[in-house]
Amino acid sequence: MSPDGSSDESYAYLGPELTFTESALLTVPGAAQARRVPATSVNAALQLVLDGEVGAAMVPIENSVEGGVTATLDAIAVSDELRIIREVVVPVRFNLLARPGTRLEDVHLVATHSHAIAQCRGWVDEHLPAAEYLPSSSTAAAGVALTGPGPWPWDAAICAPVVGERYGLAVLAEDIGDRTGAVTRFVLVSRPRPLPPRTGSDKTTIVVPLPDDHPGALMEILGQFSARGVNLSRIESRPTGAYLGDYFFSIDAEGHLEDARVADALAGLHRISPATRFLGSYPRADDGIPSVPRHHRDQAFEDADRWIRSLGAGKIQSDTAER
Amino acid sequence: MSPDGSSDESYAYLGPELTFTESALLTVPGAAQARRVPATSVNAALQLVLDGEVGAAMVPIENSVEGGVTATLDAIAVSDELRIIREVVVPVRFNLLARPGTRLEDVHLVATHSHAIAQCRGWVDEHLPAAEYLPSSSTAAAGVALTGPGPWPWDAAICAPVVGERYGLAVLAEDIGDRTGAVTRFVLVSRPRPLPPRTGSDKTTIVVPLPDDHPGALMEILGQFSARGVNLSRIESRPTGAYLGDYFFSIDAEGHLEDARVADALAGLHRISPATRFLGSYPRADDGIPSVPRHHRDQAFEDADRWIRSLGAGKIQSDTAER
Amino acid sequence: MSPDGSSDESYAYLGPELTFTESALLTVPGAAQARRVPATSVNAALQLVLDGEVGAAMVPIENSVEGGVTATLDAIAVSDELRIIREVVVPVRFNLLARPGTRLEDVHLVATHSHAIAQCRGWVDEHLPAAEYLPSSSTAAAGVALTGPGPWPWDAAICAPVVGERYGLAVLAEDIGDRTGAVTRFVLVSRPRPLPPRTGSDKTTIVVPLPDDHPGALMEILGQFSARGVNLSRIESRPTGAYLGDYFFSIDAEGHLEDARVADALAGLHRISPATRFLGSYPRADDGIPSVPRHHRDQAFEDADRWIRSLGAGKIQSDTAER
Amino acid sequence: MSPDGSSDESYAYLGPELTFTESALLTVPGAAQARRVPATSVNAALQLVLDGEVGAAMVPIENSVEGGVTATLDAIAVSDELRIIREVVVPVRFNLLARPGTRLEDVHLVATHSHAIAQCRGWVDEHLPAAEYLPSSSTAAAGVALTGPGPWPWDAAICAPVVGERYGLAVLAEDIGDRTGAVTRFVLVSRPRPLPPRTGSDKTTIVVPLPDDHPGALMEILGQFSARGVNLSRIESRPTGAYLGDYFFSIDAEGHLEDARVADALAGLHRISPATRFLGSYPRADDGIPSVPRHHRDQAFEDADRWIRSLGAGKIQSDTAER
Repeated sequence: MSPDGSSDESYAYLGPELTFTESALLTVPGAAQARRVPATSVNAALQLVLDGEVGAAMVPIENSVEGGVTATLDAIAVSDELRIIREVVVPVRFNLLARPGTRLEDVHLVATHSHAIAQCRGWVDEHLPAAEYLPSSSTAAAGVALTGPGPWPWDAAICAPVVGERYGLAVLAEDIGDRTGAVTRFVLVSRPRPLPPRTGSDKTTIVVPLPDDHPGALMEILGQFSARGVNLSRIESRPTGAYLGDYFFSIDAEGHLEDARVADALAGLHRISPATRFLGSYPRADDGIPSVPRHHRDQAFEDADRWIRSLGAGKIQSDTAER
Repeated sequence: MSPDGSSDESYAYLGPELTFTESALLTVPGAAQARRVPATSVNAALQLVLDGEVGAAMVPIENSVEGGVTATLDAIAVSDELRIIREVVVPVRFNLLARPGTRLEDVHLVATHSHAIAQCRGWVDEHLPAAEYLPSSSTAAAGVALTGPGPWPWDAAICAPVVGERYGLAVLAEDIGDRTGAVTRFVLVSRPRPLPPRTGSDKTTIVVPLPDDHPGALMEILGQFSARGVNLSRIESRPTGAYLGDYFFSIDAEGHLEDARVADALAGLHRISPATRFLGSYPRADDGIPSVPRHHRDQAFEDADRWIRSLGAGKIQSDTAER
Repeated sequence: MSPDGSSDESYAYLGPELTFTESALLTVPGAAQARRVPATSVNAALQLVLDGEVGAAMVPIENSVEGGVTATLDAIAVSDELRIIREVVVPVRFNLLARPGTRLEDVHLVATHSHAIAQCRGWVDEHLPAAEYLPSSSTAAAGVALTGPGPWPWDAAICAPVVGERYGLAVLAEDIGDRTGAVTRFVLVSRPRPLPPRTGSDKTTIVVPLPDDHPGALMEILGQFSARGVNLSRIESRPTGAYLGDYFFSIDAEGHLEDARVADALAGLHRISPATRFLGSYPRADDGIPSVPRHHRDQAFEDADRWIRSLGAGKIQSDTAER
Repeated sequence: MSPDGSSDESYAYLGPELTFTESALLTVPGAAQARRVPATSVNAALQLVLDGEVGAAMVPIENSVEGGVTATLDAIAVSDELRIIREVVVPVRFNLLARPGTRLEDVHLVATHSHAIAQCRGWVDEHLPAAEYLPSSSTAAAGVALTGPGPWPWDAAICAPVVGERYGLAVLAEDIGDRTGAVTRFVLVSRPRPLPPRTGSDKTTIVVPLPDDHPGALMEILGQFSARGVNLSRIESRPTGAYLGDYFFSIDAEGHLEDARVADALAGLHRISPATRFLGSYPRADDGIPSVPRHHRDQAFEDADRWIRSLGAGKIQSDTAER
């Protein structure tokens, strides 16, 4: 199996079928032909990985409308044996689905996942002002159930378009999300394995416990990145659960562990917060290339290291210092 | 009505009755005698405030187990007309409740709020490994429903102890939360009014949009506080929803707007992120007194301002500069 | 008398006549017609100001070849009653002068000021390798003496060209400074008076004692400037003389006390180092205009101050916060 | 010859004999028996080292009254082939010396080095208010000359006490320095050789050109030290001479190149300012031991490096990350 999980692999994912998570998984090369196991929760999906039942699991980690998917952030933060090996960004579109024959004015109770209702709140308040909302365990579950025998108390479901196509449900309204352009970010998580190779457009995810409670502690953490010119594309605070005010930070940094500036920043983090966890370096979904000033590039690190090594021996500096 | 909402007031709160939020509200002086309106969501409770239907609303904002209550953070972040005037910290205890006669081994389906199940996951996995979980709109709703005619598909509910006491439900297990000492923090929110007076043990809540996407932007924000010796007791990143990677920060800082160091830090924030929002200064629930070095105290700010004003006129500096 | 000392004034300067300092003074409007008093030292010139004998004194403060003129830096650092009101930059050119009839090969002993010999070292080592050097109290003194009765032990003097012209000395070599383009910066110093008006191309000089001996103390000082986008055009450390390692910093910052960012930075400095001294805001000799980002301009400070003032009263923020 | 130059060595020093510099040299083990060559200037002394005429040279580098000895700072800053291998701190005491029979009231002209007159200015102004001052090339030269045939125009000299003792001059006044407790710091400079071993009480001297002219450049330099908990005991700005406002910084940091935090800070400096020069690590004269927090000690660096190396291979982190 290759480091990025692209072949000869089996997968878990946050189920059920026909959710955005399965769509994300299907973008992985070979996943369409691989064994795919839907799990009932993020934790269950990750447990299948830890137990060796599957090679990797696709789980949501960030949603441009709803924010960090906290179950994923927390689960991967505490395990020593999980690594992110790939990220996938999927556009999010919602349809309002119902049994054939249902009219919009017949809809009194709408079922969907709580994240989905939040993303369609504007449309629902305008077009179904009197309807009640029922939380379901997934968007797909709410729709699929409508095709079964029932009786189910809800009249319509907010789901991914694929649910309607697959099960022949009526589309009462299309693309009802409040934000066009909404996306969700997913990560493919495996047990530790050799890192996907550096591509030049990479991302590194880490978890840093806040070392103590003084005004500068978070600044010290951030300073490790800015001092090496490493951009952060995501930073989220999460409570450790130990007591109010005890946090860890979940951070995505631009670059790969094999970039000297990233490795140096991580070494600095480890010194000030030794429980810092490395969750993986992997290619960016957006192919963005960071702009790195000369003095933060690998060459500058190599030059500096060579210079330092030359000093102890009593050599003359001029051959290495100036360029 | 006094600035801290302690009398002659009506209140909304995140309902239903018998939740921890109502317990928090009842700690406000006079609230037990005041009109109290349960609302079906944080947004609904805050809307009652904005509409003038009630004077203030009690809503959860931070949970030591589950993290920031994102609906509250997001709702108060975007409104120009909401202010936090008080905070309340309430210990969180859960009981497993059922209809009298139910035995633990009869429990196949447990209903409660998703936050509550997360906080009792360890107990449930150990004692009810085969039970399924059904999300309910509140902990209390899951319990109260068991006292009605039914049929309800679930056999037991995880609720605050008060629900069992009030409705005569059987207590199958007590204090089943995974963490003893868990607490939830609530805030009382009103429309803008004169600030509660400075007590010396105060907290100030603000919302700061990240001005742009360079490595130092968050450091610049944090630097406004650390440069004035202002400790942060909470910092949470939240996506704006505009696009992946666009954040605002919800921050609790130690001190009151009337503390010169806090006002100066806020002025600095406003310059670098002009859409910074002030959400209130109010007494801390824990009565903690921050340790403020001499050069960050009001006297140092007054001395510096007087010195600056003295310079333009061509006066000799010695009378003010040295102390 | 106007704030910039341009009329109806009397002046002291570091003498004797015919030095670069007098040239600097003569660039001040009206100085050619004013009473001009040469002093034997920087301290003597400044004492004439303090005693009210003259209105202002011209003294050197920075030399692009030899560095800070420490006597000036130290003298203005400790007095509460001195202000810089103008700066002048003068190109520095040296000639080798001798009595008529002297040939270059006759020169065995050269007299000049120690700063001047340092600036002509290359030429002297090449063209007069065997000549000895004798320190004189000024460049002009060494040259003028050659016109008197003698006997003087030296054969030639390194002086400003004007000395040769005025006294009819032979020019053995012209423009013998090692660096073409060398300049010296002078400041015009008076007792406190209303500041020269802001021009948009200004400089502010301050003296900041290092508050204590921890790794971040100097960073805190510099942070007061960088946090407000204030560039420094000169920073020099000087020992206080109290003990090894006790420093003050002499700093020129871009901008005028009437620029809000400068006043705010100075207020911050005064808080962390209350003995900070303001030595004046005055037009820059080079007419450079600093590039100030939007959020450090006066408008941003005004907006922030108005916003802060609006918060206490319970007003809605939307009218001022967003722009 | 040992790395600290303590045996079988020959020495140059800033002469002439009987100055404080020779006193400093005589504190070096073995120097009293070694060949000692007085030089007429700091540059001449250092040139003897570069030419291999002597093994090392003692030169002044810092004076608690007069500040950095700029000739030394500048000379060692530009040479690739000089290293500081030892520092010596010598108390500075001045006597007023004259030919036997001279009375204080006979003194009309006093000769000494310009640094010495500056340090005795208070005493001279009080006790010899009418006396003139004549600069001499050294304190000793002014005194020794008084024992020769003359005629010399000066009546008295300010010298180290040893000059009077050795040459039988009359002591008109003792210990006339304005500051009791004044000291001068000297350094012993050699060509590159293996570093003196780490003692735990060490100092490292470097020269850092300011990389460019933005508000944060100096902060970036200082940040390299403070980010690793490295204290600075001296920082002096010096103009490069290229143009007004172009500086380098001469810095003494606490610690030895073999301390991981120092080597890491130097590597960081080299990246942002590649022309940074290392001038040596050597024992501190004051035997002070820096207080280094746990996360800046060698162990923390080793742990962080081992952690970083463990990540790429796909190992589980738990064995190294937590302690």
